[in-house]
Amino acid sequence: MTSSAPKLDNPVAASALPPADSREQVSAFMKAIQDQICEGLAAADGGTDFQQDQWERPEGGGGRSRVLKQGNVFEQGGVNFSEVWGSQLPPSILVQRPEAAGHGFYATGTSMVLHPQNPYIPTVHLNYRYFEAGPVWWFGGGIDLTPYYAALEDVQHFHRTLKQACDRHHPDYYPTFKHWCDEYFYLKHRQETRGVGGIFFDYQDGRSGELYRGPDQDGIAAQHSHQVGEVPSRSWDDIFGFVQSCGNAFLPAYVPIVDRHRDQDYGDRQRNFQLYRRGRYVEFNLVYDRGTIFGLQTNGRTESILMSLPPMVRWEYGYQPEPGTPEAALYETFLKPQDWLALETHP
Amino acid sequence: MTSSAPKLDNPVAASALPPADSREQVSAFMKAIQDQICEGLAAADGGTDFQQDQWERPEGGGGRSRVLKQGNVFEQGGVNFSEVWGSQLPPSILVQRPEAAGHGFYATGTSMVLHPQNPYIPTVHLNYRYFEAGPVWWFGGGIDLTPYYAALEDVQHFHRTLKQACDRHHPDYYPTFKHWCDEYFYLKHRQETRGVGGIFFDYQDGRSGELYRGPDQDGIAAQHSHQVGEVPSRSWDDIFGFVQSCGNAFLPAYVPIVDRHRDQDYGDRQRNFQLYRRGRYVEFNLVYDRGTIFGLQTNGRTESILMSLPPMVRWEYGYQPEPGTPEAALYETFLKPQDWLALETHP
Repeated sequence: MTSSAPKLDNPVAASALPPADSREQVSAFMKAIQDQICEGLAAADGGTDFQQDQWERPEGGGGRSRVLKQGNVFEQGGVNFSEVWGSQLPPSILVQRPEAAGHGFYATGTSMVLHPQNPYIPTVHLNYRYFEAGPVWWFGGGIDLTPYYAALEDVQHFHRTLKQACDRHHPDYYPTFKHWCDEYFYLKHRQETRGVGGIFFDYQDGRSGELYRGPDQDGIAAQHSHQVGEVPSRSWDDIFGFVQSCGNAFLPAYVPIVDRHRDQDYGDRQRNFQLYRRGRYVEFNLVYDRGTIFGLQTNGRTESILMSLPPMVRWEYGYQPEPGTPEAALYETFLKPQDWLALETHP
Repeated sequence: MTSSAPKLDNPVAASALPPADSREQVSAFMKAIQDQICEGLAAADGGTDFQQDQWERPEGGGGRSRVLKQGNVFEQGGVNFSEVWGSQLPPSILVQRPEAAGHGFYATGTSMVLHPQNPYIPTVHLNYRYFEAGPVWWFGGGIDLTPYYAALEDVQHFHRTLKQACDRHHPDYYPTFKHWCDEYFYLKHRQETRGVGGIFFDYQDGRSGELYRGPDQDGIAAQHSHQVGEVPSRSWDDIFGFVQSCGNAFLPAYVPIVDRHRDQDYGDRQRNFQLYRRGRYVEFNLVYDRGTIFGLQTNGRTESILMSLPPMVRWEYGYQPEPGTPEAALYETFLKPQDWLALETHP
């Protein structure tokens, strides 16, 4: 389909065209990553397994939603795979990719949110996706960690693992996509990051020239100005390879953190704080998250979209953490963008 | 300020101009209604009283937020008063009132959400507000009821009380604003109303001609076609009088429902269903509610805006009520628009 593209504002080099079986390759990977993650998490949980719902989308395509409830470790976890197509991308995406207007689209991806029971284990989110629409294609996605009682060594382990996956492909990837993640997972009305971030990117394609750094990347562009323009034209295989590395980095980035805290004792105080902080997750997903809002407004499968919401949540008017407590430390240190890998382990 | 209006697309009759002390009159009423409601609710609760936070808005104005927590009846209740001004209304409002562009604005209002502890007592919401901006002014607001285990006699009592308040001013008000409420408090992604509705209206001003029936009122306009155009030009006093009647109808509409169920026994099943259904309240407020989204996106006072969120909430993937249960009855009968006052008490 993309080979029949009649015209392009930015001509795409031949090497940037997807292979003939691009959709099969990516959807197979997205399913494999769902399988791999579910197996790894069920093993880490040790209590219960995922239950699967297969579903079809009337307009085209479908998916498989897997949910684990009330396990040993995970109070709730959902891992979705979907592969959908239709006659036209929604306006919110066409603004970013006007060349796709008037063309059908194909999209496949995997997304996941885990809400552990133990407040010492962070919540984690992952999503990788691939689009084709007429003359354009792109990869997007990311992963981010949301601790309640944060340990710097966990945060560093998580970021180090992601950096290693990124660095295998390009030295610009980690700093650029780490910054983009801090900007995307930000609650303006709270002036807080959602958690300690990770990596996030969108609209990664094979156009020659600069690496696309997101809608508001002036800061990072200035900071890394020597690198701007140095990212060579990337092939479809290059970018798909990068996304595969990111997907494969999930279990090694997260499971050691689970194992470190799975037997840590906690009481009502920690549980209450976790439930309160989960409210921020709801606020982010329903107020800001483009995927969630887009899905809800375009007749997506509501139960799969809202699988990201926590099983139990608390709001409390006027809550402020007491100075000097671990709860205050979360706000002071971990809910603002930081160059985690440059921090001393015991700051 | 409105008397200096230079030009108008729709000339306003002299009788439709606000009095010189319009702001003082409306803000005094909004404060009085806050006082009246808080007194009535604290008496109904019988356990604890509201705590007040006074706050100032850096751009101009301020308010007083009152919260009651863990009372005998109310798990949490918040009643806000605010009076704010600034140099320019946000674009989302200017689309509706382009004549206000380039003018400063003034806005005052009262809003309230109550989350009772007992699942047999419905959640209730109220908001009335008044705007002036250059050549235009208007009143808006409404009230709606969200039961968990709904009793038709409660729903009818609530609607009958609102209808009486409306009918004292115009026979079109109740059917028009009841319909608008059903449309506004609707969760498209769930295909459910938020609850059993009430009344809702916006942009009510003194322009001659038709009653403004909202953005999508074709149905009601056709249904009541004999009335279209029959609403005479209304004075500022007429509309303010109507809003006062609405505000004063709150305690008689709601408190008898509280009293009827305050001692009704309930168990985990009812509590779990209440917490689950509260999730819909969160979804509506964060995904659809214009006031909430506008407030969050324009540096409103977050804690006051999100006072509407329930103190404890639950989400559950794939929940479906069991057929034939009271939970199923909520979905089958009460989460769709109905002409409540035409239903038999025991359907």
